[in-house]
Amino acid sequence: MARWEPGTRERLQDAALELFEHGYDTTTAAQIAERAGTSKSTFFRHCTDKREVLFAGTSEIADRAVAAIAALPPGTPAFDLVDNVLRAMIQIFDPAKRAWYRRRQAVVDKNRELRERDLLKRQSQNEAITAALRERGLDGLTLDLVVALIGLASHATYTRWIEASDGQDVALLANDVLAELRTTTTDLRAGAADT
Amino acid sequence: MARWEPGTRERLQDAALELFEHGYDTTTAAQIAERAGTSKSTFFRHCTDKREVLFAGTSEIADRAVAAIAALPPGTPAFDLVDNVLRAMIQIFDPAKRAWYRRRQAVVDKNRELRERDLLKRQSQNEAITAALRERGLDGLTLDLVVALIGLASHATYTRWIEASDGQDVALLANDVLAELRTTTTDLRAGAADT
Repeated sequence: MARWEPGTRERLQDAALELFEHGYDTTTAAQIAERAGTSKSTFFRHCTDKREVLFAGTSEIADRAVAAIAALPPGTPAFDLVDNVLRAMIQIFDPAKRAWYRRRQAVVDKNRELRERDLLKRQSQNEAITAALRERGLDGLTLDLVVALIGLASHATYTRWIEASDGQDVALLANDVLAELRTTTTDLRAGAADT
Repeated sequence: MARWEPGTRERLQDAALELFEHGYDTTTAAQIAERAGTSKSTFFRHCTDKREVLFAGTSEIADRAVAAIAALPPGTPAFDLVDNVLRAMIQIFDPAKRAWYRRRQAVVDKNRELRERDLLKRQSQNEAITAALRERGLDGLTLDLVVALIGLASHATYTRWIEASDGQDVALLANDVLAELRTTTTDLRAGAADT
Protein backbone atom coordinates (compact mmCIF):
# COMPACT_ATOMS: atom_id res chain seq x y z
CA MET A 1 0.00 0.00 0.00
CA ALA A 2 3.05 2.27 -0.29
CA ARG A 3 1.50 4.05 -3.26
CA TRP A 4 -1.18 5.58 -1.01
CA GLU A 5 0.34 8.76 0.41
CA PRO A 6 -1.29 9.64 3.73
CA GLY A 7 -3.95 12.35 3.39
CA THR A 8 -4.24 12.07 -0.39
CA ARG A 9 -7.86 10.98 -0.29
CA GLU A 10 -8.81 13.91 1.95
CA ARG A 11 -6.92 16.37 -0.26
CA LEU A 12 -8.66 15.01 -3.36
CA GLN A 13 -12.04 15.22 -1.64
CA ASP A 14 -11.45 18.81 -0.46
CA ALA A 15 -10.27 19.88 -3.92
CA ALA A 16 -13.21 18.14 -5.65
CA LEU A 17 -15.76 19.71 -3.33
CA GLU A 18 -14.36 23.21 -3.84
CA LEU A 19 -14.39 22.77 -7.62
CA PHE A 20 -17.84 21.15 -7.70
CA GLU A 21 -19.24 24.06 -5.68
CA HIS A 22 -18.31 26.26 -8.64
CA GLY A 23 -19.76 23.84 -11.20
CA TYR A 24 -19.89 20.07 -11.26
CA ASP A 25 -20.23 19.53 -15.02
CA THR A 26 -17.24 21.65 -15.97
CA THR A 27 -14.84 20.10 -13.43
CA THR A 28 -12.44 17.43 -14.69
CA ALA A 29 -10.51 14.75 -12.81
CA ALA A 30 -7.27 16.41 -13.97
CA GLN A 31 -8.32 19.72 -12.37
CA ILE A 32 -9.17 17.98 -9.10
CA ALA A 33 -5.80 16.21 -9.09
CA GLU A 34 -3.94 19.44 -9.86
CA ARG A 35 -5.71 21.37 -7.10
CA ALA A 36 -4.93 18.53 -4.66
CA GLY A 37 -1.25 18.72 -5.66
CA THR A 38 -1.17 15.24 -7.14
CA SER A 39 -1.47 13.49 -10.51
CA LYS A 40 -4.42 12.33 -12.57
CA SER A 41 -3.21 8.74 -12.26
CA THR A 42 -3.26 9.07 -8.46
CA PHE A 43 -6.82 10.39 -8.73
CA PHE A 44 -7.86 7.27 -10.63
CA ARG A 45 -6.13 4.99 -8.13
CA HIS A 46 -8.43 6.45 -5.48
CA CYS A 47 -11.64 6.87 -7.51
CA THR A 48 -13.15 5.01 -10.46
CA ASP A 49 -14.63 8.25 -11.84
CA LYS A 50 -15.34 11.92 -11.09
CA ARG A 51 -18.53 11.20 -9.16
CA GLU A 52 -16.84 8.65 -6.92
CA VAL A 53 -14.50 11.16 -5.26
CA LEU A 54 -17.24 12.45 -2.92
CA PHE A 55 -18.15 8.89 -1.92
CA ALA A 56 -14.69 7.51 -1.10
CA GLY A 57 -14.90 5.95 2.34
CA THR A 58 -18.66 5.34 2.29
CA SER A 59 -18.10 1.57 2.30
CA GLU A 60 -16.58 1.92 5.78
CA ILE A 61 -19.98 2.73 7.21
CA ALA A 62 -21.36 -0.55 5.83
CA ASP A 63 -18.33 -2.42 7.25
CA ARG A 64 -19.11 -1.02 10.70
CA ALA A 65 -22.76 -2.02 10.41
CA VAL A 66 -21.82 -5.57 9.35
CA ALA A 67 -19.32 -5.92 12.22
CA ALA A 68 -21.93 -4.69 14.72
CA ILE A 69 -24.50 -7.20 13.45
CA ALA A 70 -22.01 -10.07 13.78
CA ALA A 71 -21.16 -9.03 17.37
CA LEU A 72 -24.75 -9.11 18.72
CA PRO A 73 -25.95 -12.18 20.63
CA PRO A 74 -28.47 -14.54 19.00
CA GLY A 75 -32.08 -13.68 19.78
CA THR A 76 -31.48 -9.93 19.95
CA PRO A 77 -34.88 -8.24 19.39
CA ALA A 78 -35.22 -6.55 15.99
CA PHE A 79 -35.39 -3.07 17.44
CA ASP A 80 -32.23 -3.63 19.48
CA LEU A 81 -30.48 -4.68 16.27
CA VAL A 82 -31.46 -1.35 14.72
CA ASP A 83 -30.31 0.52 17.83
CA ASN A 84 -26.90 -1.17 18.00
CA VAL A 85 -26.21 -0.99 14.28
CA LEU A 86 -27.06 2.71 14.19
CA ARG A 87 -24.69 3.41 17.09
CA ALA A 88 -21.89 1.58 15.29
CA MET A 89 -22.51 3.43 12.01
CA ILE A 90 -22.43 6.91 13.49
CA GLN A 91 -18.94 6.35 14.96
CA ILE A 92 -17.71 7.35 11.51
CA PHE A 93 -19.30 10.83 11.68
CA ASP A 94 -16.22 12.86 12.59
CA PRO A 95 -17.17 16.16 14.35
CA ALA A 96 -14.19 17.84 12.66
CA LYS A 97 -15.71 17.02 9.25
CA ARG A 98 -19.31 18.05 9.97
CA ALA A 99 -19.16 21.30 7.98
CA TRP A 100 -17.49 19.47 5.09
CA TYR A 101 -20.31 16.88 5.00
CA ARG A 102 -22.91 19.65 4.96
CA ARG A 103 -21.24 21.32 1.98
CA ARG A 104 -20.88 17.92 0.28
CA GLN A 105 -24.59 17.17 0.74
CA ALA A 106 -25.56 20.53 -0.80
CA VAL A 107 -23.50 19.67 -3.90
CA VAL A 108 -24.96 16.14 -4.12
CA ASP A 109 -28.53 17.42 -3.75
CA LYS A 110 -28.08 19.83 -6.64
CA ASN A 111 -26.77 17.28 -9.15
CA ARG A 112 -28.69 14.36 -10.65
CA GLU A 113 -25.58 12.25 -11.39
CA LEU A 114 -24.38 12.61 -7.81
CA ARG A 115 -27.83 11.84 -6.39
CA GLU A 116 -27.88 8.65 -8.47
CA ARG A 117 -24.46 7.61 -7.18
CA ASP A 118 -25.60 8.38 -3.62
CA LEU A 119 -28.64 6.15 -4.14
CA LEU A 120 -26.47 3.30 -5.47
CA LYS A 121 -24.13 3.65 -2.49
CA ARG A 122 -27.04 3.43 -0.07
CA GLN A 123 -28.33 0.42 -1.99
CA SER A 124 -25.00 -1.41 -1.72
CA GLN A 125 -24.91 -0.53 1.99
CA ASN A 126 -28.40 -2.06 2.31
CA GLU A 127 -27.22 -5.17 0.48
CA ALA A 128 -24.27 -5.64 2.86
CA ILE A 129 -26.57 -5.21 5.88
CA THR A 130 -29.15 -7.58 4.35
CA ALA A 131 -26.50 -10.28 3.85
CA ALA A 132 -25.24 -9.90 7.44
CA LEU A 133 -28.77 -10.12 8.89
CA ARG A 134 -29.67 -13.10 6.69
CA GLU A 135 -26.55 -14.79 8.09
CA ARG A 136 -28.28 -14.54 11.53
CA GLY A 137 -31.40 -16.26 10.22
CA LEU A 138 -33.58 -13.23 9.52
CA ASP A 139 -35.66 -13.52 6.37
CA GLY A 140 -38.78 -12.38 4.52
CA LEU A 141 -40.52 -9.19 5.57
CA THR A 142 -38.79 -9.07 8.97
CA LEU A 143 -35.44 -8.89 7.21
CA ASP A 144 -36.70 -6.24 4.77
CA LEU A 145 -38.19 -4.19 7.59
CA VAL A 146 -35.07 -4.25 9.78
CA VAL A 147 -32.92 -3.21 6.80
CA ALA A 148 -35.37 -0.37 6.02
CA LEU A 149 -35.36 0.82 9.65
CA ILE A 150 -31.55 0.84 9.79
CA GLY A 151 -31.42 2.84 6.54
CA LEU A 152 -34.08 5.24 7.74
CA ALA A 153 -32.50 5.77 11.18
CA SER A 154 -28.98 6.31 9.84
CA HIS A 155 -30.18 8.68 7.11
CA ALA A 156 -32.26 10.71 9.59
CA THR A 157 -29.37 10.90 12.09
CA TYR A 158 -26.92 11.96 9.36
CA THR A 159 -29.31 14.61 8.00
CA ARG A 160 -29.97 16.08 11.45
CA TRP A 161 -26.27 16.02 12.32
CA ILE A 162 -25.08 17.93 9.25
CA GLU A 163 -27.82 20.52 9.83
CA ALA A 164 -27.11 20.85 13.57
CA SER A 165 -24.85 23.44 15.16
CA ASP A 166 -21.18 22.78 15.86
CA GLY A 167 -20.52 20.68 18.92
CA GLN A 168 -23.87 18.86 18.71
CA ASP A 169 -23.19 15.28 19.83
CA VAL A 170 -24.26 12.84 17.10
CA ALA A 171 -24.98 10.17 19.77
CA LEU A 172 -27.68 12.40 21.28
CA LEU A 173 -29.23 12.90 17.84
CA ALA A 174 -29.24 9.11 17.39
CA ASN A 175 -31.04 8.77 20.76
CA ASP A 176 -33.77 11.13 19.54
CA VAL A 177 -34.15 9.31 16.23
CA LEU A 178 -34.41 5.91 17.94
CA ALA A 179 -36.96 7.18 20.48
CA GLU A 180 -39.06 8.70 17.66
CA LEU A 181 -38.80 5.53 15.60
CA ARG A 182 -40.02 3.42 18.55
CA THR A 183 -43.01 5.74 18.99
CA THR A 184 -43.73 5.86 15.27
CA THR A 185 -43.71 2.09 14.80
CA THR A 186 -45.98 1.74 17.86
CA ASP A 187 -48.42 4.33 16.52
CA LEU A 188 -48.88 2.79 13.07
CA ARG A 189 -52.37 1.62 14.00
CA ALA A 190 -53.44 4.87 15.70
CA GLY A 191 -55.53 7.52 13.93
CA ALA A 192 -54.47 11.04 13.07
CA ALA A 193 -51.43 9.99 11.08
CA ASP A 194 -52.08 13.26 9.32
CA THR A 195 -53.57 16.57 10.28
CA MET B 1 -51.48 11.38 -29.85
CA ALA B 2 -52.08 9.99 -33.37
CA ARG B 3 -48.41 9.02 -33.66
CA TRP B 4 -48.86 6.37 -30.93
CA GLU B 5 -50.10 3.27 -32.74
CA PRO B 6 -52.07 1.05 -30.36
CA GLY B 7 -50.01 -1.85 -29.06
CA THR B 8 -46.66 -0.41 -30.12
CA ARG B 9 -45.34 -0.16 -26.58
CA GLU B 10 -46.24 -3.79 -25.88
CA ARG B 11 -44.65 -4.96 -29.14
CA LEU B 12 -41.46 -3.04 -28.34
CA GLN B 13 -41.38 -4.48 -24.83
CA ASP B 14 -41.92 -8.04 -26.06
CA ALA B 15 -39.23 -7.64 -28.73
CA ALA B 16 -36.77 -6.09 -26.27
CA LEU B 17 -37.29 -8.82 -23.69
CA GLU B 18 -36.77 -11.58 -26.25
CA LEU B 19 -33.55 -9.96 -27.50
CA PHE B 20 -32.27 -9.13 -23.99
CA GLU B 21 -32.78 -12.78 -22.98
CA HIS B 22 -30.18 -13.65 -25.61
CA GLY B 23 -27.80 -10.86 -24.53
CA TYR B 24 -28.49 -7.38 -23.21
CA ASP B 25 -25.18 -5.74 -24.14
CA THR B 26 -25.26 -6.78 -27.79
CA THR B 27 -28.87 -5.68 -28.41
CA THR B 28 -29.42 -2.32 -30.10
CA ALA B 29 -32.49 -0.06 -30.19
CA ALA B 30 -32.60 -0.56 -33.97
CA GLN B 31 -32.80 -4.35 -33.55
CA ILE B 32 -35.62 -4.00 -31.02
CA ALA B 33 -37.54 -1.68 -33.37
CA GLU B 34 -37.03 -4.05 -36.32
CA ARG B 35 -38.23 -7.09 -34.37
CA ALA B 36 -41.28 -5.10 -33.22
CA GLY B 37 -42.04 -4.21 -36.86
CA THR B 38 -41.51 -0.49 -36.36
CA SER B 39 -38.83 2.16 -36.79
CA LYS B 40 -35.95 3.31 -34.61
CA SER B 41 -37.52 6.79 -34.37
CA THR B 42 -40.73 5.22 -33.02
CA PHE B 43 -38.61 3.37 -30.46
CA PHE B 44 -37.14 6.66 -29.26
CA ARG B 45 -40.57 8.30 -29.07
CA HIS B 46 -41.51 5.60 -26.57
CA CYS B 47 -38.21 5.24 -24.67
CA THR B 48 -35.37 7.61 -23.86
CA ASP B 49 -32.83 4.77 -24.15
CA LYS B 50 -32.38 1.01 -24.43
CA ARG B 51 -32.77 0.40 -20.72
CA GLU B 52 -36.02 2.33 -20.50
CA VAL B 53 -37.98 -0.04 -22.73
CA LEU B 54 -38.49 -2.56 -19.90
CA PHE B 55 -39.70 0.21 -17.57
CA ALA B 56 -42.26 1.92 -19.82
CA GLY B 57 -45.47 2.20 -17.85
CA THR B 58 -43.86 2.02 -14.40
CA SER B 59 -44.90 5.61 -13.63
CA GLU B 60 -48.55 4.45 -13.78
CA ILE B 61 -48.06 2.52 -10.55
CA ALA B 62 -46.93 5.72 -8.79
CA ASP B 63 -49.92 7.60 -10.28
CA ARG B 64 -52.27 5.02 -8.78
CA ALA B 65 -50.57 5.29 -5.39
CA VAL B 66 -50.82 9.09 -5.44
CA ALA B 67 -54.52 8.99 -6.42
CA ALA B 68 -55.25 6.49 -3.63
CA ILE B 69 -53.51 8.70 -1.05
CA ALA B 70 -55.52 11.76 -2.14
CA ALA B 71 -58.79 9.80 -1.87
CA LEU B 72 -58.35 8.69 1.77
CA PRO B 73 -60.10 10.63 4.54
CA PRO B 74 -58.04 12.83 6.89
CA GLY B 75 -56.91 11.05 10.03
CA THR B 76 -56.53 7.65 8.34
CA PRO B 77 -54.15 5.60 10.53
CA ALA B 78 -50.70 5.06 8.99
CA PHE B 79 -51.17 1.35 8.54
CA ASP B 80 -54.49 1.85 6.76
CA LEU B 81 -52.71 4.22 4.38
CA VAL B 82 -50.23 1.46 3.56
CA ASP B 83 -53.08 -1.05 3.12
CA ASN B 84 -55.11 1.16 0.77
CA VAL B 85 -52.16 2.35 -1.29
CA LEU B 86 -50.93 -1.21 -1.79
CA ARG B 87 -54.37 -2.33 -3.00
CA ALA B 88 -54.46 0.55 -5.50
CA MET B 89 -50.95 -0.21 -6.80
CA ILE B 90 -51.56 -3.90 -7.43
CA GLN B 91 -54.51 -3.14 -9.74
CA ILE B 92 -51.87 -2.69 -12.41
CA PHE B 93 -50.58 -6.26 -12.12
CA ASP B 94 -52.34 -7.81 -15.11
CA PRO B 95 -52.75 -11.61 -14.70
CA ALA B 96 -52.26 -12.01 -18.46
CA LYS B 97 -48.78 -10.44 -18.17
CA ARG B 98 -47.58 -12.35 -15.10
CA ALA B 99 -45.24 -14.67 -17.05
CA TRP B 100 -43.86 -11.68 -18.96
CA TYR B 101 -43.07 -9.85 -15.70
CA ARG B 102 -41.28 -12.93 -14.35
CA ARG B 103 -39.10 -13.14 -17.48
CA ARG B 104 -38.50 -9.38 -17.32
CA GLN B 105 -37.38 -9.60 -13.69
CA ALA B 106 -34.91 -12.40 -14.51
CA VAL B 107 -33.32 -10.17 -17.18
CA VAL B 108 -33.20 -7.14 -14.85
CA ASP B 109 -31.65 -9.19 -12.02
CA LYS B 110 -28.83 -10.37 -14.30
CA ASN B 111 -27.78 -6.92 -15.54
CA ARG B 112 -26.23 -4.12 -13.48
CA GLU B 113 -27.44 -1.29 -15.78
CA LEU B 114 -31.00 -2.55 -15.59
CA ARG B 115 -30.83 -3.03 -11.82
CA GLU B 116 -29.68 0.59 -11.51
CA ARG B 117 -32.55 1.84 -13.65
CA ASP B 118 -34.96 -0.28 -11.57
CA LEU B 119 -33.60 1.32 -8.41
CA LEU B 120 -34.03 4.83 -9.85
CA LYS B 121 -37.60 4.02 -10.89
CA ARG B 122 -38.40 2.82 -7.39
CA GLN B 123 -36.79 5.96 -5.99
CA SER B 124 -38.91 8.24 -8.18
CA GLN B 125 -41.99 6.23 -7.16
CA ASN B 126 -41.01 6.81 -3.51
CA GLU B 127 -40.60 10.53 -4.21
CA ALA B 128 -44.09 10.78 -5.72
CA ILE B 129 -45.57 8.92 -2.74
CA THR B 130 -43.57 11.08 -0.30
CA ALA B 131 -44.91 14.28 -1.89
CA ALA B 132 -48.51 13.01 -1.77
CA LEU B 133 -48.22 12.01 1.90
CA ARG B 134 -46.52 15.29 2.83
CA GLU B 135 -49.50 17.03 1.23
CA ARG B 136 -51.65 15.31 3.91
CA GLY B 137 -49.45 16.69 6.69
CA LEU B 138 -47.23 13.66 7.33
CA ASP B 139 -43.62 14.55 8.05
CA GLY B 140 -40.37 13.46 9.69
CA LEU B 141 -39.81 9.82 10.55
CA THR B 142 -43.53 8.95 10.29
CA LEU B 143 -43.48 10.05 6.67
CA ASP B 144 -40.24 8.15 5.98
CA LEU B 145 -41.59 5.02 7.67
CA VAL B 146 -44.91 5.00 5.79
CA VAL B 147 -43.09 5.46 2.47
CA ALA B 148 -40.71 2.60 3.37
CA LEU B 149 -43.61 0.32 4.34
CA ILE B 150 -45.46 1.02 1.08
CA GLY B 151 -42.28 0.28 -0.91
CA LEU B 152 -41.62 -2.88 1.06
CA ALA B 153 -45.21 -4.15 0.81
CA SER B 154 -45.53 -3.47 -2.92
CA HIS B 155 -42.14 -5.02 -3.68
CA ALA B 156 -42.93 -8.14 -1.61
CA THR B 157 -46.36 -8.54 -3.24
CA TYR B 158 -44.88 -8.12 -6.73
CA THR B 159 -42.07 -10.60 -6.05
CA ARG B 160 -44.47 -13.22 -4.67
CA TRP B 161 -46.90 -12.68 -7.52
CA ILE B 162 -44.37 -13.20 -10.32
CA GLU B 163 -43.10 -16.34 -8.59
CA ALA B 164 -46.60 -17.73 -7.89
CA SER B 165 -48.45 -20.17 -10.11
CA ASP B 166 -50.87 -19.04 -12.81
CA GLY B 167 -54.27 -17.96 -11.56
CA GLN B 168 -52.94 -16.91 -8.13
CA ASP B 169 -54.96 -13.84 -7.13
CA VAL B 170 -52.62 -10.92 -6.44
CA ALA B 171 -55.16 -9.48 -3.93
CA LEU B 172 -54.78 -12.60 -1.76
CA LEU B 173 -51.00 -12.25 -1.86
CA ALA B 174 -51.38 -8.61 -0.78
CA ASN B 175 -53.56 -9.75 2.15
CA ASP B 176 -50.79 -12.10 3.28
CA VAL B 177 -48.12 -9.41 2.97
CA LEU B 178 -50.19 -6.89 4.96
CA ALA B 179 -50.96 -9.41 7.71
CA GLU B 180 -47.25 -10.33 7.97
CA LEU B 181 -46.25 -6.68 8.01
CA ARG B 182 -48.69 -5.94 10.85
CA THR B 183 -47.23 -8.84 12.86
CA THR B 184 -43.65 -7.88 12.04
CA THR B 185 -44.03 -4.25 13.08
CA THR B 186 -45.72 -5.39 16.31
CA ASP B 187 -42.93 -7.85 17.07
CA LEU B 188 -40.03 -5.41 16.68
CA ARG B 189 -39.50 -5.36 20.45
CA ALA B 190 -39.81 -9.12 20.93
CA GLY B 191 -36.80 -11.42 21.22
CA ALA B 192 -35.79 -14.17 18.82
CA ALA B 193 -35.66 -11.92 15.77
CA ASP B 194 -33.17 -14.52 14.62
CA THR B 195 -32.73 -18.21 15.20
